[in-house]
Amino acid sequence: MSYDHVNITWETRVTGVMELDEKLHFLAQEARELYLPTVVPVIDAPPTPLAFYREWIAPNKPVLVRNAFNHWPALSRWSIDSLRARIGEKIVTVAVTPTGYADAIAKNRFVMPEERRMRFAHFLDILADPTLDDGIFYVQKQNSNLTDEFRDIFADVDAEIDWASIALGRRPDAVNFWMGDGRAVTSMHKDHYENLYCVVAGEKTFVLHPPTDAPFIPYKYYKPGVYKKCGDGFEIVDCVDETDVPWICVDPLRDNSESIYGKARPITCTVKAGEMLYLPSLWFHHVRQSHGSIAVNYWYDMEYDIKFAYFEFLSKLLPSSQGTSN
Amino acid sequence: MSYDHVNITWETRVTGVMELDEKLHFLAQEARELYLPTVVPVIDAPPTPLAFYREWIAPNKPVLVRNAFNHWPALSRWSIDSLRARIGEKIVTVAVTPTGYADAIAKNRFVMPEERRMRFAHFLDILADPTLDDGIFYVQKQNSNLTDEFRDIFADVDAEIDWASIALGRRPDAVNFWMGDGRAVTSMHKDHYENLYCVVAGEKTFVLHPPTDAPFIPYKYYKPGVYKKCGDGFEIVDCVDETDVPWICVDPLRDNSESIYGKARPITCTVKAGEMLYLPSLWFHHVRQSHGSIAVNYWYDMEYDIKFAYFEFLSKLLPSSQGTSN
Repeated sequence: MSYDHVNITWETRVTGVMELDEKLHFLAQEARELYLPTVVPVIDAPPTPLAFYREWIAPNKPVLVRNAFNHWPALSRWSIDSLRARIGEKIVTVAVTPTGYADAIAKNRFVMPEERRMRFAHFLDILADPTLDDGIFYVQKQNSNLTDEFRDIFADVDAEIDWASIALGRRPDAVNFWMGDGRAVTSMHKDHYENLYCVVAGEKTFVLHPPTDAPFIPYKYYKPGVYKKCGDGFEIVDCVDETDVPWICVDPLRDNSESIYGKARPITCTVKAGEMLYLPSLWFHHVRQSHGSIAVNYWYDMEYDIKFAYFEFLSKLLPSSQGTSN
Repeated sequence: MSYDHVNITWETRVTGVMELDEKLHFLAQEARELYLPTVVPVIDAPPTPLAFYREWIAPNKPVLVRNAFNHWPALSRWSIDSLRARIGEKIVTVAVTPTGYADAIAKNRFVMPEERRMRFAHFLDILADPTLDDGIFYVQKQNSNLTDEFRDIFADVDAEIDWASIALGRRPDAVNFWMGDGRAVTSMHKDHYENLYCVVAGEKTFVLHPPTDAPFIPYKYYKPGVYKKCGDGFEIVDCVDETDVPWICVDPLRDNSESIYGKARPITCTVKAGEMLYLPSLWFHHVRQSHGSIAVNYWYDMEYDIKFAYFEFLSKLLPSSQGTSN
């Protein structure tokens, strides 16, 4: 009840009446000043479960962890040749697009990739020589494909990240295997998961925004469609009877000076082979990668607690072009 | 990037345009539905540091802990007679008021108690026979008085709560000793601390509100004053040259049907001797007690992280009669 404590908030710094949009922008700025890093911090060893929860999960802060999975056989066994020899004949699901953008905006639609079922060896052939096909190929099916279609190599990684499972008191909901073309891009979005993203080969570059940047990240509603190979090229087939999909309508790699997004301050982080990124729940992220990079990520369900309630409240305050969930 | 995940938020439940005050009230309601208890949960043993952080600190949820300090000598040694024998001659600071309300609203002012320095034995005499004085006496000085004026009995309790210090990665900022009249009341307020409140004798009753109830908790600005004994009664002496103090202008024990507070849903919790309440940072609380109750509380500094940023943002959105910090 110390009414005279030092008030470190903007109360003492801002006078006068602020409009709602100013308050929203101030939230983003204050979050940066209060607790967010300007670059993703790096730690050289896995944290204890308690430290992981207290330092990163609870405050919803990303961290790059080195030396977290040096013991994985995958690091030495997942060469192209070895993968071909071991699982080349397996039929797997590959996302194919003409542009590299799967689950992204194209021609004023939200366009999902063609999901092509093919021998993994054929995928590896195209990866080795992209001129073999006019599509851009990316293994990215996020249905825990490493425990499903790729289960024969699942034993080359840990089934879960021990210290994360202990910290969170649960096991991962999904373990996903990612491998593909250097032109493949994952468009900006957010997930309702705590995400541990392990790069096994090559590198991945993330453009990140905390949830408090939501006021700078515009959404629009789009008709959903799917790419379909057609003769010499691809066509977009509309999904009939499906409702419009809210999706982020900016790309951080393009000129955004005309958009509210131009005012946002992205945090960019490159994750190299052998490194793990903890990507907190509800962080917006855009991902690109080196050609032939391989990654494994673990999705742990997030807590729908006070942070989530506040985020949903924030979303409700945004203009109707923003604040939708995806 | 599962855009079709089940959206458990109010998106799917509310249609049409909501006004800001409706959104604020919805936040309070959604927080209750998402993660808050309707009564304070009880656990029968202290949690592990990790469980304490994950289940209670991070989600900012109160919990009543039993069997957390059965080993304290204080439980058997802090009888009135024993305390009189051991520290009766010590000079201590006691808050004295005519009403029982210290740091509360009276006569349209924010009135602090008279801080009277007296022999502890004299305080105990008045506690045993309140007719000896027309004031209401309460040992409540929150400057870590148990390590200061009452340091001679500090060894009867733990210097810190081990599992809390490990969880939070820090030691308490203050350890306070509370003892007083059954008419003494602590008016509704919030603290920037994680609070572990241990009742050694008697009982305390807390009226609690989570931070997301802020839209229902009105503040006003008041001129500060101090009670001063004057002849047969008390007068209020204005503090000159001090700025007005924002304070909550409702009392949960009175009829609030005319106030916005009448729409709030308090969570009431009685803490008995031998029990510990974890009272999360930024929770509003009003406290009353049995006559002669004794308590010890530990204040641990809170994290100024995402939850704090969101709370300050929420405060900024409230009408100017609300949302001020104290």
